[in-house]
Formats: sequence, C-alpha cells, structure tokens
Amino acid sequence: MSGLQAFRYGIQIGVFSDREENEPVQFMTPFSQTGSFESAEDLTSFAETCDVLTLENEFIDSEVLAKAQENSGTPIFPSPKSFSLIENKLIEKQTFESAGIEVTPYGLIEDEADIKAFGDDHGWPYLLKSSKGGYDGFGNETVADLEEAKEAFDKLGGNKGHDIIAEAFVDFTHELAVQVARNETGHVVYPCCETVQENHICVALKTPAPVAESIRKEAQEIAVKATETIDGKGIFAFEFFLTPDGSLLLNESAPRPHNSGHYTIEGCVTSQFENHVRAVLGLPLGSPELRKPAVALINLLGTDERDAQVDEALNALRASDGHLHVYGKLDSRPGRKMAHYTLLGEDMEQTYGKAQELTREVQI
Amino acid sequence: MSGLQAFRYGIQIGVFSDREENEPVQFMTPFSQTGSFESAEDLTSFAETCDVLTLENEFIDSEVLAKAQENSGTPIFPSPKSFSLIENKLIEKQTFESAGIEVTPYGLIEDEADIKAFGDDHGWPYLLKSSKGGYDGFGNETVADLEEAKEAFDKLGGNKGHDIIAEAFVDFTHELAVQVARNETGHVVYPCCETVQENHICVALKTPAPVAESIRKEAQEIAVKATETIDGKGIFAFEFFLTPDGSLLLNESAPRPHNSGHYTIEGCVTSQFENHVRAVLGLPLGSPELRKPAVALINLLGTDERDAQVDEALNALRASDGHLHVYGKLDSRPGRKMAHYTLLGEDMEQTYGKAQELTREVQI
Repeated sequence: MSGLQAFRYGIQIGVFSDREENEPVQFMTPFSQTGSFESAEDLTSFAETCDVLTLENEFIDSEVLAKAQENSGTPIFPSPKSFSLIENKLIEKQTFESAGIEVTPYGLIEDEADIKAFGDDHGWPYLLKSSKGGYDGFGNETVADLEEAKEAFDKLGGNKGHDIIAEAFVDFTHELAVQVARNETGHVVYPCCETVQENHICVALKTPAPVAESIRKEAQEIAVKATETIDGKGIFAFEFFLTPDGSLLLNESAPRPHNSGHYTIEGCVTSQFENHVRAVLGLPLGSPELRKPAVALINLLGTDERDAQVDEALNALRASDGHLHVYGKLDSRPGRKMAHYTLLGEDMEQTYGKAQELTREVQI
Repeated sequence: MSGLQAFRYGIQIGVFSDREENEPVQFMTPFSQTGSFESAEDLTSFAETCDVLTLENEFIDSEVLAKAQENSGTPIFPSPKSFSLIENKLIEKQTFESAGIEVTPYGLIEDEADIKAFGDDHGWPYLLKSSKGGYDGFGNETVADLEEAKEAFDKLGGNKGHDIIAEAFVDFTHELAVQVARNETGHVVYPCCETVQENHICVALKTPAPVAESIRKEAQEIAVKATETIDGKGIFAFEFFLTPDGSLLLNESAPRPHNSGHYTIEGCVTSQFENHVRAVLGLPLGSPELRKPAVALINLLGTDERDAQVDEALNALRASDGHLHVYGKLDSRPGRKMAHYTLLGEDMEQTYGKAQELTREVQI
C-alpha cells in the first residue's frame, strides 16, 4: 500500500520478493525481481535499479541490507543500522530498556534450566518466541509447564541454535498502538489506538483508544522516544500493554507500515503510507490529525479456504464513510488477513458497533 | 488514477494503449498491451484478457468499442451505446438538446457559406471545434473573422471531411462542473464546483462553486438528467457556463473521471475514482459528501520543457490538509497538466488564496 502512495507522487516502484509470482504488489508494477532474502547479491542487483529502497516486512537481516546498501550505493530507509537494533526480539528489548522504556518482562532461553528458571521467576504460563520473523502469532508458543515449554523450544528451533526468548504473561486491560513517522525534517506521531486481539491476531482497531487521554499521550511520547532511540527514518509502529495499574509496557515494534495504522488511510489527514513515502524521501511530514472523532477498523480475516473472493460486503459499501480495502491476495484461508473495513463516525462505541454489524456477514 | 482505486479493492488491472511505453499507468501493471485505437482486433485481443473494460479517455470510436465488446464477450462501461451519444460534439449537443437540456449555441460547418452564416447569426468571434478528440483547447480555434475562420476550418481538417462545429461565444460569469456516478444500483451526484480557466485550460477548482446554492443545485439536476439521457454506467463529468442572467448552458461532457473531479480524492468521502470503479462493477455507490466546507484545487501546469521533476513544492507539502498529486508523466512542457494540489479548509476565498500562495513557486 506504500506503492499506491508512491504512485500518487508520480514515483515508479519496483518490488524485490522471494516469491516468483502472485504477491499482490507484483500486480502493481512491471519491475519485479525475485531472489533470496538471504542473498546480499540478489538484493544488490535489485537495489542497483532503484534510487531508494524501503521495507514492507522484516524478513531480511540487517547485515544483508547493509551489504546491499554498500555494494549498490542505493540508500535503504529505515537504515540497516536502525533495523539492526530491533530485528531480533532480544536486542530490541535491550535497546528500548537501555533508553529507559519499560518493556514486557523477558529472558533469553538457551536450555532447560533457563526454561525452568523463567517459569519460577515469572509464573506459568508464559510465552516462548523465536527472536526473529514472528508475526500474527506465528513463531509464538504459549507454554503452561516445563514439558510444553521444552517441546515449544524445540519447535521454535531452539535446539538448532535459534535465539529463543521468554516473555512473561502480562496482565493488561488494553492493547494499544501508536505510529511515528520521522526523518531529517522532524517527526509526527499518530493518535493512540486500541488493537483488539483474538488468538494473537489483531481483529479490530479503535481510534482514539478508549483509555484516559493521559495514557494516550504517554504512549505517543514513548513511541517518539523509541523512534529516536533507533534514529528511525521511515514509519514505525509500537504496540503496548496497558496494565491494570495504568502502566504502559512496550511489547513490539515494527519499522514499516503496520496493520495497526491502516485506519489512517481515511481516518487521518495523512495516511501512514503517505508519511512512509515522505519520510523515506526526506520530505516534510504530513498531519496525522483525525478526520472524525471516532475511527473504527475491522480486519476481515479469511473465512474459507478457497480462491479469494469477497461476498456479502454490499452493506459495508453502502454505509456512508465506510471504506473497504481488499489486499489482492489470491488465496484465502481461515484467519488470514485478507481485507479491512474502516468506518468514520462521531462516537466510538456506536461507530465500532456499526462497523462490526456491517462486516459480520462478509465472506472472504 | 482509477487503477489505484482498483488496487484498493484487490483488483488487478491491465492497460491498453497506443503507445509502446512511458504512459504513467504502464508503470503500474505488468499487464500492458499496445495496439491501434482504430483496430477492433487489437482491442478485442486485450479485452479477452479482462473481466471488464472501462475508459480513461475518449480516443476510441464507439464502433470499435462495440465490436471489441461483441467479439470478446467482455463488457465495456460506459457502454459503447452511451459513448456513441456523446463522442461526437455535434451528436452530443443534439442528444442533450433533445432531452430538453440547454446547450451552447452551435452549428455544423460544412463550407464557407456555413462559416459566414454562423458569424452573421451569432456574431464574431466564435469558436470552431473539431467534433472529435479535442481537449484542453486542442482541436479548438477562436476565429475573429471570415478569413481566420476559413484558415481554422482547414487546420481542423474540415477540408478533409472532418466534422467541424461552430460554437457561439457565450457571455458567462462562471464556468461550473459536476460529476455524476451511476449504475444499476442508483446514482450519486457530486457538489458543483467552479472551474477557473486560462487559455482554455482549467487552472483551478473551487468547491463548492461560489454561486447561489440554487444554481449549484440546478447544475446537479441537469448533470443527473444528462447522465440518464445517455443511460450512463460509470462516472461522468459535465461542464457548464453560467450566464449573467443566471442560466446554465451545458458546454461539454466526459464519460470518465475528469480533471474537474480531482478535488474529490481528498475533498469528498468517496472519490470520483472509487465511484468510477464501483459503478463499472455494479457495486453500490459511495457518498460524494464534502469533507470540509471549502476545497480548493490548483492544477500544476508544466513550467519548463524538460524531464519531469518537481521543485519548490515543500511549502505545499508542509501545509496541513494540503495534498500533492504528481501524475508520473516523464516529460514536462509549459502548460501541460503535470500534477495538482488540493487544499481543504473552512472558508473558500481564504483556502483558495492559500493554495495559490503555496503553489506559486512550484517548478514542474
């Protein structure tokens, strides 16, 4: 979706993927290259055809990015250096902790003794996570006891040398998220939204988050501080737990446009995608102001295992200030993020309820 | 720009052009075909790769469209039948006149006697127009006397059998425009805007038009009637003269997204491009409501003959709710429409003045 914004600035885009075909963005440009995400040579060859590179996922190591940047002379933003500070969940937590930002309690897990000690210290169940590459619950395992934890450790690749970290279960009242765009001209921070999660998948967003304004403001301040900590140039998303005592714990970060910012397309004066493009190009950043007092977003997850198609969405399209986005993925499967629906309104609970109602029957 | 909206619905696009390369939309898809706009075979071969076809210009004859539709079995909207009623300026005027819509005084010019008679009846100067294919003043000639008119008649191809029509100079206080989207689910009509013209080129838009609300409403009603007259399915633009006595004369129509509707991208809840795509797909149409009380648009015309680039646009980007769109044309030349800038605000004159100020230095 960053590509669509690039087009609006008259910019041509190319895409580098590890898939030969059928990536949605590959249908948006005649300039596609396929290569290995582990090959600096492949990425260099692509980078040599571009003026600037940016990322829409975190699947390429910062070392590969750094080599491709050096060999091609094509700048990459966010920079490989920024990315190196957050690409690994362990380093990410250490980076932000060193900057005085409170993160979810964690530990590096290298063997059975570590598994046991973390449970003793933080209680069971807890989470085991592969330190790289996880998203939407993939690469995460909830473990209830030592046996489950040992099994999950192996499943996540701990026995093959992959870094595994443990995270304590945090008691929370809300999950929140904030986007920050930043470059040499300054930064802008988006409103704080609530991310409604089911089975580790974000199913909806409410913006502004239905929490105290002071909490929203604090989340925005931490997000800006975190972006500065990694000297970020681009668009960044930060996800938080709000605990019952009103503390904010930074949970995850992403150096790219993020699902928790999709509401900004119609919900804000400048979308996260536009500010992504602006940030990467070194242009002044646009206003993140909300267009309406309440913006609700429903993620439309795959309902069937089938060739992707959208049914029963007419009511959603009929609603005034309701906006449907379909991602162009060719295959649907239950739980896969296939599309989203944004509804703007005056009152959050009413708007959210209406958005749920309008999308309840959608088959995708 | 319709393609960008198609992408937002997860739709793949292909493009048929008479140019081999470097059309901006050719940078937005791997599916490009080049052929002659006069060849039903070429268009059929393209249509066979698509589920539905639509138009972003008026360069293909309705007969060619009809043949390609029949041979390929791929529907085309707006339909060749609708298009046949407006593709030729003479037939267009007769179509709307028959429906009781007042149009600018006109006449078919076939020889010198016609040239002289039109001047005698409607006064000098008047306009000679090629009945097909003109836009932005191309294909139009203002003629002050018989000698000029004879020269222009030949230049426009009148001596080669091209249909030439004469149009009287209309005394007007404002030029107005209205978009209508329509399909089998109903229609929506956009606000009435003023098109500010210099040298036959639209240089700016003010929405809503600074005329009486009754006039705006009447223009909307005529636009809907005109769309119904041609049984239009798609998005249509209608341009009017408002005369000093408060009459509206329909001047031109376009069966496609039109420059006079570019303000709708940010200015309205649903853009003309989204409603174009919705209309063509038979989907319910979205709200054309304005997002703010005043929407000003400045067309950014080429300032230099050079490879296209944008300079001195930073102030425009910095303004809150200011939106820059660059079309991705590779070559700039003075007067060519290269980009536009939309500014949303509370008060029209203030917003328009600010938009002019912010774009005055832009080099493109």
